[in-house]
Amino acid sequence: MSEKKRRRGDGTSSSKPLAKDSVKHSSALSFKNRLKSDSTILASLEKLCRDSRTSSTSTSKPLTLTDLNLASTCREVSDVDPESVKESIECTILAAAKSILAGEGFSFSVPSRSATNQMYVPELDRIVLRDKSSLRSFSSLSTVRKTAVTTKVLSLIHQLCMKNIHVTKRDLFYTDVKLFQDQNQSDSVLDDVSCMLGCTRSSLNVVASEKGVVIGRIVFTDDGDRIDCTKMGVGGKAIPPNIDRVANMESDALFILLVEKDAAFMRLAEDRFYNRFPCVIVTAKGQPDVATRLFMKKMKTELKLPVLALVDSDPYGLKILSVYMCGSKNMSYDSSNLTTPDIKWLGIRPSDLDKYKIPEQCRLPMTEQDIKTGKDLLEEDFIKRNAGWVEELEIMVKTKQKAEIQALSSFGFQYLSEVYLPLKIQQQDWL
Amino acid sequence: MSEKKRRRGDGTSSSKPLAKDSVKHSSALSFKNRLKSDSTILASLEKLCRDSRTSSTSTSKPLTLTDLNLASTCREVSDVDPESVKESIECTILAAAKSILAGEGFSFSVPSRSATNQMYVPELDRIVLRDKSSLRSFSSLSTVRKTAVTTKVLSLIHQLCMKNIHVTKRDLFYTDVKLFQDQNQSDSVLDDVSCMLGCTRSSLNVVASEKGVVIGRIVFTDDGDRIDCTKMGVGGKAIPPNIDRVANMESDALFILLVEKDAAFMRLAEDRFYNRFPCVIVTAKGQPDVATRLFMKKMKTELKLPVLALVDSDPYGLKILSVYMCGSKNMSYDSSNLTTPDIKWLGIRPSDLDKYKIPEQCRLPMTEQDIKTGKDLLEEDFIKRNAGWVEELEIMVKTKQKAEIQALSSFGFQYLSEVYLPLKIQQQDWL
Repeated sequence: MSEKKRRRGDGTSSSKPLAKDSVKHSSALSFKNRLKSDSTILASLEKLCRDSRTSSTSTSKPLTLTDLNLASTCREVSDVDPESVKESIECTILAAAKSILAGEGFSFSVPSRSATNQMYVPELDRIVLRDKSSLRSFSSLSTVRKTAVTTKVLSLIHQLCMKNIHVTKRDLFYTDVKLFQDQNQSDSVLDDVSCMLGCTRSSLNVVASEKGVVIGRIVFTDDGDRIDCTKMGVGGKAIPPNIDRVANMESDALFILLVEKDAAFMRLAEDRFYNRFPCVIVTAKGQPDVATRLFMKKMKTELKLPVLALVDSDPYGLKILSVYMCGSKNMSYDSSNLTTPDIKWLGIRPSDLDKYKIPEQCRLPMTEQDIKTGKDLLEEDFIKRNAGWVEELEIMVKTKQKAEIQALSSFGFQYLSEVYLPLKIQQQDWL
Repeated sequence: MSEKKRRRGDGTSSSKPLAKDSVKHSSALSFKNRLKSDSTILASLEKLCRDSRTSSTSTSKPLTLTDLNLASTCREVSDVDPESVKESIECTILAAAKSILAGEGFSFSVPSRSATNQMYVPELDRIVLRDKSSLRSFSSLSTVRKTAVTTKVLSLIHQLCMKNIHVTKRDLFYTDVKLFQDQNQSDSVLDDVSCMLGCTRSSLNVVASEKGVVIGRIVFTDDGDRIDCTKMGVGGKAIPPNIDRVANMESDALFILLVEKDAAFMRLAEDRFYNRFPCVIVTAKGQPDVATRLFMKKMKTELKLPVLALVDSDPYGLKILSVYMCGSKNMSYDSSNLTTPDIKWLGIRPSDLDKYKIPEQCRLPMTEQDIKTGKDLLEEDFIKRNAGWVEELEIMVKTKQKAEIQALSSFGFQYLSEVYLPLKIQQQDWL
C-alpha cells in the first residue's frame, strides 16, 4: 500500500489492459490453486454445523431476561396468537370502560420507547427496553389526542385479529387519515400498542412489505403451500411478509449464507452454489426489513444452522450485521424475536482486501462520514465483545478503504462463487 | 366537493369516530349491495378475455417498423441467442483488426441515443430510436477513451456469452474500475453496445436486479424449475432477473392484474383474490424495472390475456403505466421488447374518488410539482390518443386531488378485494 495508485474518480487514467489483466489473472489463479477438493471443504462446513448444533443444544434455551434477573426491570414482547391479542385488547378496553363508569375517565399505561429507556445487555448481546412507563390519559389536554389515537389503533387491531388478516402500516394509517394526520403518528402508536399488549408487531397482524428473497436447501410451507427453495429457478422465493404463516421448515443445508446485496445473491443463485455447498441463501437487498429478520431468526432457531455473512467491506455492511444480530433501537422492545445471535462475519473483511489482492482501483476511498461511522462502531458494545471484529474495523478505519462484494468481479464474474467463497470456507476464515 | 373539509396536515382535527364511521360504513355497504353474483362478474372477464384474444389474433402480428416503412429510418433491437451475440462481436472486432492492419486505425459506428434521435410513433404507441449514428474513432482525441471502453465492454460481453452466465451492470463496472472510472460510463456504453449489435440488453446477459413479484394463475419454468404461482403462499414468486430462463408459460387466468404497490399486492395475495377471479397478479413495487417489464410483455404475448392496471390516482401512477406501455426514453431502442401495449386503466381513477365516495380526508392535495407533472402528461401523445384518459387526467388536474390505492382501506381493509375490484370488473369499468 506504500505506492499511492490512482483510483476511481481520477480522470486521467491510462489503462494498460493487457499488463494489468495478466497480473490480475495470475493472482486469481494462485488463489484458485489453493482450493482443495469439495469434500475437504464440505468437512469444514460439517464441523461448523456440528459446533453450531452443539452450542445451541448445550445452552439448550438462550438466556432470557428472567435468567439475568432483569424481567422486572426490562420489558419484552412475545409472539401471541390472534385470539389472545383479541382478548388482551378486550381486557384493556373493559378496564377503560369500568374506569369511565366509576367517574374516573380513562387512561392507558404506555411503556416509554425513548433512547434513555433502552440498554444493551452484553449477556444477551442485544438492545432491550427498560420498564419505564407513562400514563396516557384521556382527560389531560396534552395526551387526549394520543389517547384517542391509541383507542382507534386498538380497535383496528381487534378487527384484524378477529378476521385474522394482515395489513401494512400504510393501510392502518388510511383507515382514519383525519385522526392520525400523519403516518408517523399511527406507526408510533402501533409500536406503543405492541409494547402495551406485550406482543410482537407481527402478532398484531400488521406487517411490513416484503423485500427479502430466499433460495437453496430449505423447504417450508407458506400459508399451507409447500415451497421447495431448490426449485425456485434463479429468481428465488420472495420471503413472505407474514411470518406466522411460515411453518414446517426442513433443510439438509450445512449453513445459512446471508448476503447483503442482490447482485451477489443473483450470482450464487445462477451458479446454484447451494448444490455444491449445501446452504440456504438469503438477502434483504440492503438494510434488512422486519420480514427477513423474522425469517432469519426462525431458520436459525428451527434448523440450528450456523449463519455466515457476506457483506460489503464498509461500515454500512457492519451496521447491517448489527441489525440482524442486535436489533435496531426503535424496535428494542422486540429484540428477542427479531435478532439472530452468533452470525459469523465471513467477508468481505477489511483484511481480505490485501489478502485476496483486490486491485487498488476496485477499492474505494472512505468518505469522512464513513470514517466517522466506522469509529462510532468501534465504540459499540456488540463490536467490542468480538476482538476479531475490532481488529478488522481498525484496519478499515486505518487504511480508509472500503470495497463492495462486487469488487471480486475484477477477477472474473464467477470468482465469488468458484474461488472466494469456497476458499474462505475451506480455511474456516470467519470471525 | 362544495364544502371544503379539513384534510390531512390540518393540526386541529376534531374526530367524531362514530358519526363518521357510520357514514363510511353506509357508503361502503351501498357499493357492496350493487355486487352481482361471481358468475355474472366472471362473465365480464370472459368477454374481456375473448376480445383480447380476438384482437391479438386478428392483428395476428403486431405492427412493426417495417410495416410502417420506418425500418430504414428507425432502429430497433431484438432478442438474440448468446451464440449469435458472440459471433456478432467477433465480426465487429475482426473488422476493427482488418482496418488496423490496413493502416487505417479503427472506429465503431455507434447509434445516437440522444433525445433528438427519438420519436413517438402513434401507430406503434411507443417511443422508438431513429437511425442517426456517429463514428467512435480510436485515433481521435475526443473519442479514444470511449472507444477503449467500448472495446472492453465488447470483450466482457463476449465472455458472458461464451459461458452463458448473467451479471449485473455493477459487476461489469467492477471488472475495470480504473478504465470505466464511474458506473455511468460503463452503463452508458453497455446501452451503446446493445444498439450497435442490434440486440437487447438481456441478450447481452447483463440483467437488472430483481424487484417484481408474481402470484396467481400462472405456471412457468424458471431455469428449468416448474413454478406454480398458485402455490406460492402469500409471499409470491420473485420475478427472475434473467427472462431468457423463463419458459413454458401456461395459465387458465382471464386477466393479468398489474398492481403498483406491494401493499395492495399483499392484500390480494392473502385474500387469494386469484382463486375467486382467475388472474395473475404482478407488482414491480413502484417504478417498473426491466425484469418485470420483460415478464409482463412475455405474459401478454404468450398468454394473450388482457391487462388491467391498479395504480394510485396521481400523475406518478400514470407515469408508471406509461413506462409499461410505451417504454422509457433512455431505453427507446428496445421499446418493442419492453413494452406491453393495450393496458386498461382500471383504477384508482380520479373519477373514482367521488364515484366511490372516498372520504375527503383520505384524498391528498396535489403539490405544485404533481400538478405540473399532470399538465405535462396531458401533452403526451400516449395520453392524448385515449380520450377517456384525457378526461380522467383533466379531472385530476382540476380537482387538484390525488389518492393512493390504500385510501380504500378507509372502508375496511378488505374493501379492495371484496368490493372495489369485483364491482369495477362487473361494471367493466376500465379505460
